Amino acid sequence: MSLNTDSRECILAVDAGGTKIATAVVDAGGDILEETIIASPSYDGDKMVETFRNSVATSAKNCRKKGIDVKAVGIAAAGYILYKEGVLIEAPNIAWRMVPLKMIAAETAGVPAFLDNDTICAAAGERFFGAAKGVDDFICLALGTGIGGGAYVGGKLLRGNRGMAAEFGHITVDPDGPVCGCGRKGCLEAYASGTALGRTAAELASENQATTMIEIAGGNLSLINGRTVTTAAEQGDKLAMETLAIWSNRLGLGIANLIQIFDPKLVVLGGGVSESGNLFLALVREAVLEHGIRSLVEGIPIVLSALGNKASIIGAAALALEGLGPH
Amino acid sequence: MSLNTDSRECILAVDAGGTKIATAVVDAGGDILEETIIASPSYDGDKMVETFRNSVATSAKNCRKKGIDVKAVGIAAAGYILYKEGVLIEAPNIAWRMVPLKMIAAETAGVPAFLDNDTICAAAGERFFGAAKGVDDFICLALGTGIGGGAYVGGKLLRGNRGMAAEFGHITVDPDGPVCGCGRKGCLEAYASGTALGRTAAELASENQATTMIEIAGGNLSLINGRTVTTAAEQGDKLAMETLAIWSNRLGLGIANLIQIFDPKLVVLGGGVSESGNLFLALVREAVLEHGIRSLVEGIPIVLSALGNKASIIGAAALALEGLGPH
Repeated sequence: MSLNTDSRECILAVDAGGTKIATAVVDAGGDILEETIIASPSYDGDKMVETFRNSVATSAKNCRKKGIDVKAVGIAAAGYILYKEGVLIEAPNIAWRMVPLKMIAAETAGVPAFLDNDTICAAAGERFFGAAKGVDDFICLALGTGIGGGAYVGGKLLRGNRGMAAEFGHITVDPDGPVCGCGRKGCLEAYASGTALGRTAAELASENQATTMIEIAGGNLSLINGRTVTTAAEQGDKLAMETLAIWSNRLGLGIANLIQIFDPKLVVLGGGVSESGNLFLALVREAVLEHGIRSLVEGIPIVLSALGNKASIIGAAALALEGLGPH
Repeated sequence: MSLNTDSRECILAVDAGGTKIATAVVDAGGDILEETIIASPSYDGDKMVETFRNSVATSAKNCRKKGIDVKAVGIAAAGYILYKEGVLIEAPNIAWRMVPLKMIAAETAGVPAFLDNDTICAAAGERFFGAAKGVDDFICLALGTGIGGGAYVGGKLLRGNRGMAAEFGHITVDPDGPVCGCGRKGCLEAYASGTALGRTAAELASENQATTMIEIAGGNLSLINGRTVTTAAEQGDKLAMETLAIWSNRLGLGIANLIQIFDPKLVVLGGGVSESGNLFLALVREAVLEHGIRSLVEGIPIVLSALGNKASIIGAAALALEGLGPH
């Protein structure tokens, strides 16, 4: 649905992750009117649930005071989600398991609630308010610690049978490649996440001392991360730029595969690394042409997220709008 | 829509390929009432179009004579298709280009017509009449000369923005792998098609004379093809079984990737090689568990096509039923 812009209709959006729980009031245009951020007690599952519930209760109460009409709660959470049931199964680095977040939010705020994982929400955010406004077929990759995926197929979020679709980070691109966080070898994530960018740079730097990345990391190779590489590349460091070229090439290979699978109108790159997109977007586009079947991959725009680090929380609001359905 | 079983309503289904143009009358239950097969004049584009038109005209006329009520024409064609426009762009090994097959069939038969590529049609066939009856989310792989793909997402055929989606054969599974027919390296098709099965066997046989595959191929290694391998494996040939194990492992890797992308309820394997599915289905299932994230891939059934070598033509009928929409 779309909100009524005159009557102060809004969505209460929550982004529940391992470091923070953010709660925001999002209006009809996808703008954040106000946002509250609380540190996640991620080590304690019960406390995590309590903090979540209190955040929703406080924000809902504040909205009532101000005459804001909350139509629904949208929740973006890190981890595996059962969408229909509204249950978070588990999340990396957070001690909660099998939590009915949708029910908790709906009861607390007294309005319908919708829950999905943060990268699925980010895709909804791009379609309602971002780089893919009104596009029926597109794919999103969130390039951060790992690689998250999201897609729209024929105007609907790709969820699959159990709501576990779009695990784009775990496409195998080389069965003899580096070990991934999931324990398997050669996943796209093991080549083209922010973590992989840092790891690749550290490997190259250990063989080649002529790089400012070592200085930026305080002389400690193991502290080189994705941001070290982009910072050094911005300063013109040659090895950092070489690292980005290798990284972009594998990312382009993964994107070429996905284009051939989905025939999307658009590919959107988000996540922390995409903030430095100007450094690698041209390289990724080149790699897609190199690795894909030309007639299938040529001319498909690859663009950066329009929502930046607010993609999940604005996406949570979009998820609620999508969930409410046509007016 | 579904056909009225009492009033002799049928679909005229056409399968237009490089070797033959088959025309069939398909009833409400997906059964072929009669079928006419004509050799394709594939070397001559104009003759190919003329043969297609005549096949439709003759079948439509025969139906009228017999009091069969043809509701639509469904066309499965090898090659790249613009679905909405109903135009065949081009096809491997057939000399026709940019042919408006949908319009030609509709004008000739005087009923609505629908056109899509043969593997997309096969997916529709499995959903209406085959192994995926009523399943909203599933993927199909057609294992033949190449690997074709088809998928249903949320109850709709996956077509993508231009109708070119589901190119599952050209997922790169190893960027340093063997060269594929498309010119790129390490496509799934280069490992797990029928052609790849024969090629892998010939490579192994050249290093190892103790195999009946060489006899079956008349002593000529270059004549070992997919059928040679399955025939020898059925006779207990050790090298043929080893070849199938290697082949199944790579096919399983590709399927694991696709399950993680689509979260399907079911995976259907069709195409010529699937006729020997009893030889390799257990191996493929094992390989999916080996290569996939267990919580995502475990418990997803991998089954053989229920339509065998009639998948395309019965699928063409299903395509028409899907195209006609709800009654």
